[in-house]
Amino acid sequence: MGLIESPFLQACAGQIPSRTPVWILRQAGRYLPEYRAVRSKFPDFLAFLRTPEAAAEVTCQPPRLIGVDAAILFSDILTVLPPLGFDLAFKEGEGPRLSNPLRSGDGRTLERFDPVMELGYVMEAVRHCRAALPTDIPLIGFAGAPWTVACYAVDGGGGKEFSKTRAWMHSDPVGFGKILDVLADVTADHLAAQAEAGCQALQIFESWGGIVAPSDYRRVILPAVERLLARLRERTRVPVIFYCNGASTLMGVLDGLDADVWAIDWRMSLSVARTHVGPKPLQGNFDPCLLHAPEETIRKAVQLAHAQAAGGPWIANLGHGIMPDAPVSGLKALVDAVHALPPVVAEVWE
Amino acid sequence: MGLIESPFLQACAGQIPSRTPVWILRQAGRYLPEYRAVRSKFPDFLAFLRTPEAAAEVTCQPPRLIGVDAAILFSDILTVLPPLGFDLAFKEGEGPRLSNPLRSGDGRTLERFDPVMELGYVMEAVRHCRAALPTDIPLIGFAGAPWTVACYAVDGGGGKEFSKTRAWMHSDPVGFGKILDVLADVTADHLAAQAEAGCQALQIFESWGGIVAPSDYRRVILPAVERLLARLRERTRVPVIFYCNGASTLMGVLDGLDADVWAIDWRMSLSVARTHVGPKPLQGNFDPCLLHAPEETIRKAVQLAHAQAAGGPWIANLGHGIMPDAPVSGLKALVDAVHALPPVVAEVWE
Repeated sequence: MGLIESPFLQACAGQIPSRTPVWILRQAGRYLPEYRAVRSKFPDFLAFLRTPEAAAEVTCQPPRLIGVDAAILFSDILTVLPPLGFDLAFKEGEGPRLSNPLRSGDGRTLERFDPVMELGYVMEAVRHCRAALPTDIPLIGFAGAPWTVACYAVDGGGGKEFSKTRAWMHSDPVGFGKILDVLADVTADHLAAQAEAGCQALQIFESWGGIVAPSDYRRVILPAVERLLARLRERTRVPVIFYCNGASTLMGVLDGLDADVWAIDWRMSLSVARTHVGPKPLQGNFDPCLLHAPEETIRKAVQLAHAQAAGGPWIANLGHGIMPDAPVSGLKALVDAVHALPPVVAEVWE
Repeated sequence: MGLIESPFLQACAGQIPSRTPVWILRQAGRYLPEYRAVRSKFPDFLAFLRTPEAAAEVTCQPPRLIGVDAAILFSDILTVLPPLGFDLAFKEGEGPRLSNPLRSGDGRTLERFDPVMELGYVMEAVRHCRAALPTDIPLIGFAGAPWTVACYAVDGGGGKEFSKTRAWMHSDPVGFGKILDVLADVTADHLAAQAEAGCQALQIFESWGGIVAPSDYRRVILPAVERLLARLRERTRVPVIFYCNGASTLMGVLDGLDADVWAIDWRMSLSVARTHVGPKPLQGNFDPCLLHAPEETIRKAVQLAHAQAAGGPWIANLGHGIMPDAPVSGLKALVDAVHALPPVVAEVWE
């Protein structure tokens, strides 16, 4: 598959895409009846996640059913935790829970592992997807950023404050930074293995980047992100998307990162993001709740975002995961409105 | 009590305070054993809230026990909901729940009410506090901003996504704006009554400001905030503090507001906030989790914030409510570090 066939990969490469590409955070998800039909066959979420055929099936649904320009592997940012010794469970309606969170001073160490051995089901799902997807639909692999994974590893799930993780960061930034370094190495291994197995792009999710002060992020967290990106660049050439939820806080800290695409949430306009990244590719950033609005409102929001993203490639997406109650009709209206946009004129970028 | 005696009120008035004032969001709270002793006498949170003597007792504890420069009335931003016809309950460990949330198209209307009649227990608590507090400790009254109260009125509590409120805002901004207007009027009435009863400053909590895009805030929500402030200015002369959680997103939208003091959360530096508000008073903004750090770390953070706030008055505070597990020793270290700061030299402000 050449770049020329994928508007998404063209945009990732900093080229003018043949049409504006769009995909959706959490697009293989509960809002889709076809997803729920597959999900219902499994007793729990982890069993579902660890069955490559099922993961591949739901991964391939959104390009076929909604018309998005890329598939993202159905998986979870916490898959790396069990091989690191954490006892992970997903309680219905509660999200992830760890029975043995890591705590400051508990003396535990985290050890790098071989993702091909320990996360074989992820690589198997990638191969299934690649075999099943049309050649013009790229597959995106992903992982959580070190800080975001640490939030679960330390707080253990439940709530969105992650106050134990933040308290550790404040009280022992050096010791906490060492935990982040291990997570950076583990994550680089995991992402490189996904690319090796067949993913054509990789997204790093800094889903909880926005809960710390910019100065703390820069001092304690950013070095681990830079380490992750450097390790990853040594191992693979596929484009890397860095997604930050809370980007309005951190954009000034993040915009020097060695990423190919910056993906942002909806609390910052694409035009402000553009002032940070210049002509580099941007991804995002509709409010997921916009999908409840009338089609005409959605169409206008798409046109406004298109104008605000001017100055470089734009990959349309939501600014956060699509919600279980999102109407499929609203999502289709958004995807159709993106595809109906006029082609970008090269001169606008100069 | 004259301004000269209260560094907090001096700062609110834009004057150079005799020392840097400090108070703490949710300072009458569970982290304090003396608070828990009073709280334990009541079967539920609402009964506690509605007992003026008890509310006054916990309100007066932090100035005496911690040495903060102001008291804030022990109350809740949702006290206005029952007089508006909502069935409000606080479930232990779960936060507020409404059994009859307002939904788009349900035909219900919200009616203004007389807070002196319907929220008499609030005014009674204010009078108890004013009688009990030392004359140099001002009492702050407060209320939720229209959007923040609407988040609970529409979503009904539980979670922090408020996706039903956001969906309503997107799908019917005009109809939703009318709800916000009523809440603005109700809130102005409530705040003016608190000032009348004896509060010497008022804080408006936009606790969920940061969950919407700046353009949506400006278009749908800001008019109600302006309406609230205009109504309030007609009724009282006490200084008004506008607190926004998520200020890094919205500061550009908010900095033209007719408020006396801008209070921000910890995800934006005071120096960046200063570029928005110029010489006007700023309040905030330590990460509540900083209180777990060693005293030396806390002291350095205070000195850094003091430097970053230069250019106008600064009221030290956390950027969000103090957490139940915060160590009292950490809080005392913070308050002491603020009071140990050198006096501000007037020339620095020019």
